[in-house]
Amino acid sequence: MMPGEHKAEVYYAGDDFYVALSPSGHAITLETDMTRNNAPTPVELLLMALGACTGVDVTSIMKKKRQRVTGYRIEVRGQRRDIEPRAFTNTKINHIVRGHGISENALQRAIELSLAKYCSVAATFRPAVEITYSYDIIEEKTAFTS
Amino acid sequence: MMPGEHKAEVYYAGDDFYVALSPSGHAITLETDMTRNNAPTPVELLLMALGACTGVDVTSIMKKKRQRVTGYRIEVRGQRRDIEPRAFTNTKINHIVRGHGISENALQRAIELSLAKYCSVAATFRPAVEITYSYDIIEEKTAFTS
Repeated sequence: MMPGEHKAEVYYAGDDFYVALSPSGHAITLETDMTRNNAPTPVELLLMALGACTGVDVTSIMKKKRQRVTGYRIEVRGQRRDIEPRAFTNTKINHIVRGHGISENALQRAIELSLAKYCSVAATFRPAVEITYSYDIIEEKTAFTS
Repeated sequence: MMPGEHKAEVYYAGDDFYVALSPSGHAITLETDMTRNNAPTPVELLLMALGACTGVDVTSIMKKKRQRVTGYRIEVRGQRRDIEPRAFTNTKINHIVRGHGISENALQRAIELSLAKYCSVAATFRPAVEITYSYDIIEEKTAFTS
């Protein structure tokens, strides 16, 4: 491999199952039989990757901003072309942040920094895919000490 | 959700772990601590998705072409920008097909059809990412009846 190169492998495992190995050596089972539906499909991984990638950045930036986050969930909605190839055309990422006195400004800035500067997945998708975001802040009711 | 919309969710699970739920309802653990390295990272999913997506098409087309495939593996190599955002810039997909009298022409045509027409992941990446392919055909030595 060349420097900076990443290598994944995918094995056809029969019966519409595929075993994908990440460059770091972790296996995920995928499948394409939507009736049986025992594993994610390859295309579904794109939305999961996008949500997790931007989530990682937001988590990190919110920590640096000393925000007292007690829970964090991301919803990623994607729409695909109706005809083949059924590429994604737009995605909406909603960040649901629970915490104590979370700054809306800090959260918005974290999300925008991620999408504009840090998130490798968003940057890979961007020329083809419109990416928009929204957020909900929920004040944590239970006791919390940090 | 709107018709044709797909929704993934990602939960921050603490300690740099993330739990991603596919639109079809399957959970994958992701993480970003490359030293601990207990799960794939979000970015790695892109190469796994690309390899599996085109692999699904090639499997299906080779079946329709009545090719006697006994084993099929895909290697996906990706290169990313050196600076942030570290988007993928190019990927190389190598198809390793084992079988009895596999037609090189059939395989090449299957791969090209996938990349040009069917693979949703490749179509999503294409404006940003150069995608090239190669293949190896291995004649199956063991007995086989179909």
